[in-house]
Amino acid sequence: MIAVAVVGAETPGNIGTIARAMKNFGLSELYLVDPPELDPEGEAYGFAGSAREDVLPNATETTLAELVEQFHTVGTTATTNEDARKHVRYPFKTPEELAASLPAVETDTCLVFGRERVGLTNAELAQLDEVVSIPASADYPVLNLGQAATVLLYELRELTVAETQHPETVERADEREIEGLHEQFETLLTAVNHPEEKRGKTARLFRRLIGRAHPTPRETRTLRGVFRRASEFASPPDE
Amino acid sequence: MIAVAVVGAETPGNIGTIARAMKNFGLSELYLVDPPELDPEGEAYGFAGSAREDVLPNATETTLAELVEQFHTVGTTATTNEDARKHVRYPFKTPEELAASLPAVETDTCLVFGRERVGLTNAELAQLDEVVSIPASADYPVLNLGQAATVLLYELRELTVAETQHPETVERADEREIEGLHEQFETLLTAVNHPEEKRGKTARLFRRLIGRAHPTPRETRTLRGVFRRASEFASPPDE
Repeated sequence: MIAVAVVGAETPGNIGTIARAMKNFGLSELYLVDPPELDPEGEAYGFAGSAREDVLPNATETTLAELVEQFHTVGTTATTNEDARKHVRYPFKTPEELAASLPAVETDTCLVFGRERVGLTNAELAQLDEVVSIPASADYPVLNLGQAATVLLYELRELTVAETQHPETVERADEREIEGLHEQFETLLTAVNHPEEKRGKTARLFRRLIGRAHPTPRETRTLRGVFRRASEFASPPDE
Repeated sequence: MIAVAVVGAETPGNIGTIARAMKNFGLSELYLVDPPELDPEGEAYGFAGSAREDVLPNATETTLAELVEQFHTVGTTATTNEDARKHVRYPFKTPEELAASLPAVETDTCLVFGRERVGLTNAELAQLDEVVSIPASADYPVLNLGQAATVLLYELRELTVAETQHPETVERADEREIEGLHEQFETLLTAVNHPEEKRGKTARLFRRLIGRAHPTPRETRTLRGVFRRASEFASPPDE
């Protein structure tokens, strides 16, 4: 199980944004340390989308010490010390590395996010088990709190989302249908009197284009139908 | 070059959030179609972080038609039709698939985001070249506009961020240092009279633990120093 904790946030809107991202990416357990007041008519609920119905009202107020006792804790920092001499924010994992490492361990994990401007303090980070840092532009690596949480929860989605809104795979036409399209294209080239010496080359060009696009069954059938009609217009069947 | 366009947004704060994410992930060219008024004292600038200094004031107001003419356009949708019969939102790429496919093509690309509640209309999407959709929980796949843009720009960062804030790799101790640590650990086991028949097993346990953790040079040296001190206390050198 993966939980989320927000420590010392000042802006209710950010807590709402985090609650929404949690629901978008299949999480539900939200802990708040020293939260601002969350007015049901205010920004936290306004930013939470449909997480206003569950994640946000079910959030638990707690302390960092209790989280450390209960969870494998992962602190988040925007920037990291750039060398190995300091051990508060280093070594760190990227979100991808965290996503790859968590499934190997059976543990309840809590992702801990800090304050808007200063993040987690060194004293808080020192109590946590791991550190994660989102790679961003060296010119401006500091993400907004809600945006940082959204990116991290997105990256962990394969551990937390049971079922996505997407179909399992994009349906691709089978080879027989695609070969039928190519045959129809060659028929069209003949019907429109495309120069005979260029037909092979043009057919290969079309094969490469279709090969890159991985057409759906409907795309393949529709295009084949268009080419058939065009071929018929160019050389009527009773000719 | 990758640009970003926001069509018909109602909330200035979302435009500020998108501008901030652009700067975090190395982008600068922002286009606005039918934007709300962006008051320099208002939410767009308030949410933009340091992008209030460049990305946001340099944004260009334009039309969708001009974007379509100028760019390879990629529309973003929260949900997709679940089958191949409709071609407005299908086939789609995931952000990962988009990131993998864009480098293969030399083109100016524009990521097009829609309105807060309804996104891009079917008529708008029909004009765009590709569709991208973020995988999320089937229960609640609708991301907030600013959060969706943040995720997509994060996913494209390897194409757009010239240099991140992270050191290139986490520095790992070299093997010689790590073997030195293991020798010191074995010395410690002897010094503290760890049962002789268990020493080999305990040393292997410690080797596995260290092997998984990939220690930094400093971690390795520090731990070796601690073990040396402990060994000396347990069996003084003049003994």
